[in-house]
Parts: sequence; structure tokens; C-alpha cells
Amino acid sequence: MNAEIIAVGSELLLGQITNTNARYISSQLAELGINVYYHTVVGDNSDRLKDAIEVAESRADLLIFSGGLGPTKDDLTKETIARHLNTDLVMDEVALKSIQAFFERANRPMTDNNKKQALVLNGCEVLENHHGMAPGMFYSANERVYILLPGPPKEMEPMFQFEAKPLLAKWLNQGDVIISHVLRFYGVGEAELETRIQDILDLQSNPTIAPLASDGEVMLRITAKTSTEEDAWELINQTKKIILERVGTHLYGYNNDSLVSSAAKLLIQNGLTIAAAESLTAGLFQSELATISGISDTLIGGVVTYTADSKINQLGVPKEIIDDYGVVSEQCAIAMATRVKSMFGSDIGVGLTGAAGPTSHDNEPAGTIWIALAWQNNEIKTIKLDLSGMRNTNRLRAVKRTFYAIIQELSQIN
Amino acid sequence: MNAEIIAVGSELLLGQITNTNARYISSQLAELGINVYYHTVVGDNSDRLKDAIEVAESRADLLIFSGGLGPTKDDLTKETIARHLNTDLVMDEVALKSIQAFFERANRPMTDNNKKQALVLNGCEVLENHHGMAPGMFYSANERVYILLPGPPKEMEPMFQFEAKPLLAKWLNQGDVIISHVLRFYGVGEAELETRIQDILDLQSNPTIAPLASDGEVMLRITAKTSTEEDAWELINQTKKIILERVGTHLYGYNNDSLVSSAAKLLIQNGLTIAAAESLTAGLFQSELATISGISDTLIGGVVTYTADSKINQLGVPKEIIDDYGVVSEQCAIAMATRVKSMFGSDIGVGLTGAAGPTSHDNEPAGTIWIALAWQNNEIKTIKLDLSGMRNTNRLRAVKRTFYAIIQELSQIN
Repeated sequence: MNAEIIAVGSELLLGQITNTNARYISSQLAELGINVYYHTVVGDNSDRLKDAIEVAESRADLLIFSGGLGPTKDDLTKETIARHLNTDLVMDEVALKSIQAFFERANRPMTDNNKKQALVLNGCEVLENHHGMAPGMFYSANERVYILLPGPPKEMEPMFQFEAKPLLAKWLNQGDVIISHVLRFYGVGEAELETRIQDILDLQSNPTIAPLASDGEVMLRITAKTSTEEDAWELINQTKKIILERVGTHLYGYNNDSLVSSAAKLLIQNGLTIAAAESLTAGLFQSELATISGISDTLIGGVVTYTADSKINQLGVPKEIIDDYGVVSEQCAIAMATRVKSMFGSDIGVGLTGAAGPTSHDNEPAGTIWIALAWQNNEIKTIKLDLSGMRNTNRLRAVKRTFYAIIQELSQIN
Repeated sequence: MNAEIIAVGSELLLGQITNTNARYISSQLAELGINVYYHTVVGDNSDRLKDAIEVAESRADLLIFSGGLGPTKDDLTKETIARHLNTDLVMDEVALKSIQAFFERANRPMTDNNKKQALVLNGCEVLENHHGMAPGMFYSANERVYILLPGPPKEMEPMFQFEAKPLLAKWLNQGDVIISHVLRFYGVGEAELETRIQDILDLQSNPTIAPLASDGEVMLRITAKTSTEEDAWELINQTKKIILERVGTHLYGYNNDSLVSSAAKLLIQNGLTIAAAESLTAGLFQSELATISGISDTLIGGVVTYTADSKINQLGVPKEIIDDYGVVSEQCAIAMATRVKSMFGSDIGVGLTGAAGPTSHDNEPAGTIWIALAWQNNEIKTIKLDLSGMRNTNRLRAVKRTFYAIIQELSQIN
């Protein structure tokens, strides 16, 4: 079964928003073993949408649309599909009631154009929208399945996962099992990693191995296709073992792990608390940690000391350190890490200081960053980065490198 | 001139990364007045890429590719295009030297597969890569232009802006002037805003007005097409004036403004300093401010007090307030804002506390958030949010609402 994901919205073609929906739906389809061969984005234009549908029908049997189900005149996805498939739109009373209730809860008047949102393809299975108004649709015709989803990710994602995906799984014929397993690496380039496992890459056909690189990280996706789940995992595990013998030192996680989630998991598992003093990153390290649900036993808090004065007055970094070495220095990073550790009484203290860019800072060139980690045994680790990225890339890289240092340290004590 | 943007990479179809390149390139093309009618994503597969090229050639005269220029065997964009256009690939010596220099700087051995990156389409204009290794290409054939760009955004974006865009502007025939101007609103729904200006929307053909909604914000894009820039701006300004008479109270910025950039601009213009005490947002407010270059005169710093103890011990929130009202309370938010203001000696103090979710916190349901702002005149503003989003959406909404409160306050004193 091949799928094509069609996102509808002129705002996408104008570059005003990013098509995150295609990514989300693709990752969900990968779990079902459905191949996605194309993504398409088309504007709020009925003729061009119709053309895109015809192209997609020539190469896919599952068409998933997102966007264009809203109340405004631009929203014409279901109207275009209905005309194309020679069917009509009917009012769904459940959806209409839910839209009315939505306005009552929000204590806002319901304008007439909102009713249009409750119209659905005649004969479809209606997908309820628990986070917005426009319902989705699951419609099959001519041996193809058409799934219509709303555009806003916070509505689309739960609707896909809880409403559309189960219907899709039911509709799929039983066939081969396809399982993918992703190994995630940090601190090694894509070409270098590939060279180190070139012979394995050349030999493999099942499982297949695909290297992927993204912002300082490299992933290897191992995909096995067999008749049973057990056999698939056996193939995957054999290959995984050989790969990790070569490049395992750079491995930090699997599948949907991220540097922050892997670091957070290790901190939580080890019952360690952490506090951070942040200058160039200005809270990004702590905020990233706080994206993880359940972090409150680990993350006590910390300080953002953006100015030199605040490093001295609020954090207690000795003025001499700043006078002698500057704020972008190993000494300042160490003082920040140890001070915040003792201030907040945490097991681990982190200090982040540097010149984010675009200009130099305190005589250090943009991209010069010092990271210090004061561990639970009072040992100190420092890392210097010389980055050449843009301001916010540099800030994010500094945070990622800190999470990687935590992973390296805490993996060892297990 | 119509463009189609083709992103190449199986990792996109597997949902492992998001196609941010299409957004970036689209927004750049919009500035040149080039229409983008489609985005396509295709995997690392030569046959399917060839099909996508043929479909694109049937509907566009500018084809922009990103991805698939790297060193690995999966990277086959230029090879496929060369075959399709019956041309060959030649070694570019400048690019080869630049790749060798890249490895020398990074002090890493250059593996042989990296040389392949210096091969370019015979007769193309080579686009230099100042942030990575693979050069880009600008190639015209059969009255079409083909632009090939690397996949990583940090390489692609500067290459497009500084290398490809000027070539494209030169190549474009002189014609009509198309100018777009975006008005950005906060605190009003898309349907409500559209209803309030429905008669204007119905009447307009030049300029056109397109409403767009995205995560709590609504934008109106006004686009005028005339023979001179001056005429275009006159049309835009007439329409803008009428719109703002109706819904101007919700306006916060224009074009590429964001809530954070607009708030930062007002803070800097007014010479005001700010400090924040953050609980559920854990540094996100300060980190967002720090994305703005030049914020160091305004952002002094602040504290992240993720636990109740740290609110009391490190920030000095009176224990009685937490005992009597809880940490998710107006009183706690006020104490956080006033304490951090006096601690850091800033003009403005911000306090953010709440239950981010997914579970309730301190007896308050997930999504309950209190924001307090202590202004330079010591007046206090508090805002309560009852959100229903997911954890990190709620955290981001709290930060956005805070920036909007700053914009509302500081716009008045101008």
C-alpha cells in the first residue's frame, strides 16, 4: 500500500508556516508499514487541488489530506474532493452540536460560516475533533482510501492517532511485517560513520540500513521485512550488534529518543537533581529539560545571568574571575556551575557561557562557548565549542552538547 | 513565472525530519513575486525523483531542489537531473578545494566519498557553500531554470539568499510589481476576524486579502499587483487603513514580526530592563527573548524556580503565600514577579507559574496558568489562562501571552 500526503493551504506555499503535518503523518504511517512515496503541498485553489489529486491517484492508493476544512471561503478541500469523486456533502449533526458546544464553552458568538465545518462527504466515517471544530473524514471509493484531516497540528495529530489510524489498521490487508528501528548517534559525521560501516551497508538487503543526518546528529534506520514480528526483530538485532561494535561509542538513543529525553531519562533513573546557570542560552537548557513530563523530581531550577553584573550579584561568581578571564572563559563557566549547584543544593550544576553571535562578545569570537558541569562527586568537566553557525543554532548546539555530556557521564555509572 | 520546490530525502517521507526548506524557499520566492503552486517531497529513489521532475516540468518553469547532494550513495539528485537533461557531471576544482579545506579545519580525515560532492552539472553556475561541503547549482535548459541546493537548512538558507536569489532576480524578466504586506493579530479567532471584515474581503480584487491562522495568531496578507512599487504601496495602505479601523486593537506587528520580536523591540526602544521568574515555562520566556540579537541591554536575567522550595529559598516567595494559595495562584505569580524585579533590579518583573500538564499540579487542572507582570511604575497586571493544549503547547502559549501583554502595555506609552 502506497500513500501520498497532500497538505492544502496557500500559507504553506507562501512560506508562512511549515508543513509539520506531513512529517507527523509519515511517521505514523511508517509504524503501520505503509510506504509514503510523495508529499505534495498545494494552495487554496480548487483547480490545482484537483490536479494534485489526479497526480496522486496515479501513484498512490491512500490519499491523506490535511487542511482546508475550516470555516472560511478559502477552505475547499472537501468540496473539491466531493466534486472529483461525484459525491455530495451532508450535514453531520454530531459535528454541528460539537461546534455549537465549542462556542458556548469559549463564551464567544458562533458566526454562520462555522456551520460549514460540519458538512462531511456522504457515506464517510466521521472522525471526531476533540481539539477544534472541523471533523475529519475517512472515505473509501474505487479501491482507494481518502482521509481528510484538519490543518492545525494540535487538532490533526490526536485525530490521526486515535481516530484515523485504527480505521486504517483495520482496512489494511494482513501481509508482511515491516519493522524499523532507529539508532541515534552524536559526535560523529555522516560520511565518517558511513565509511566505518560501508561493508555492512553494501552487503545488507534485509534488513536495509539507511543513514540520515540532521543538525549534528546522525541516525541509522534499520528496516526488516519478514512474515513475523519475531523474525523481524531477530534480523534487526543481529545487524544492530555488528554496527554497535564499530560505532557504539557515539550511540545515545533509539527511535524517538532525543538528546534531551535520553539525558532526562538517565537523570531521573539515577535520582539526581540538576540546576543550571545560563548566559548565552538564557534558559534554553532548563526549558528543554522541562519539555519532558515528570522532570520535576530532577530539575530544581536555576538562574539566567545574561549580564556580567547578574553573574556577580545574583549568582555570586567572583568579580576577579570575570576581571581576569572574562565572561566567556572556562573559569567563568566553572564558577557558574559550582555556584548554581551550591545555591540550589542540586547534585549536578551546569554553567553555560559564550558568544552566541552574530558579533564577538567580551573579546571572544562569535561561536566561542564554554560549558562546565559540576558532578555529584564534585568533579568538574569542561567543554569548549568553536561553532560557526548562526546565533540560535549556536545556542541550541551548546544545549545539545551539554545533554550529550550528561548522557556520556551517566551511562558510565550504570 | 511559476515555481515548484522539490525536497529530496527518504528521511522526510519517513517522518524523521520536517521539510522546513520548502517554507524558507517559498518565503524568499514570495519576495521576488514568484508564484509557488506546489511543493513536492520525494525519497532517495532515482525513478521516483525522475517522475517528480516530469510532473513538475508540466506545471512549473522554475524547479528548485533541496537535498541529495551529499557524499553517500543515497544522494542522487544531481545524477538523476543530469541523466534526465542529457548532460554530464564535471569536477569543480573550487568546490573540491573547499571540501579539502573543510576537513583540514575540522582536523578530520577526508574519506573518498566526499569527493563526489564536488561534481556539478556541466555548464551550471556553481553556488558556493560557506557552511558545509556540497556546492549548489543554477542551471538553465529548455527555458526552465533548475536550482539545486543542499538539504541541511544551515547550508541551504545562506546559499539561497546570497547565491541563488541574486541570479534568480537577474534572470527574471522585468514585469509587474507584486508586493505583499502581512498584518499580524493576536487574541482574536480567524473566523471572528474574517466576519468583522467580510464586506472588505468580498469587495477586494487588487489588493487581495488572505487570512491565515497559526497557533493562536491570525495574519492578513494584503497583496497588490501594479506597474510601480509606489502604486502598489498606495493600494496596500488604503486597504490596511480600513482593516485597522475595524480590528486594529488586536494588531501586534507586520510581516516577519513575531510576538517576541515585537515585544523585544518595544523594550529596547523604551530602554527598559526585564527579569523573569519562571516555573512551568522553566526559562522559555527568557530563552525566547535571547533569540533576539541585541537583547543584552534589556534582558538582565532571572530565575527558574521549578520546585516550590526553590520559589521560597532562591527567589524569596513568602512561604505563607504558597501554603495559603498554592504555587498555581495569582498570589504566587505576583510574588514571583515582584521578587525577581527587586532581586535583579530590573524595570519590569515577570512571574510565570502554572500546571503545564499532562496532569494537574498542586490541585489545579492541567492548563491553568497564572502570569504576573510588575511594571516600571510598580503597577501589577495579572492574567489567568485556562488552556486545553498539550504540555509544551501550553508552555509556549503562556510565553506568547506574556509577550502580548508587554506589547499592549508598551504600545500605549508611545
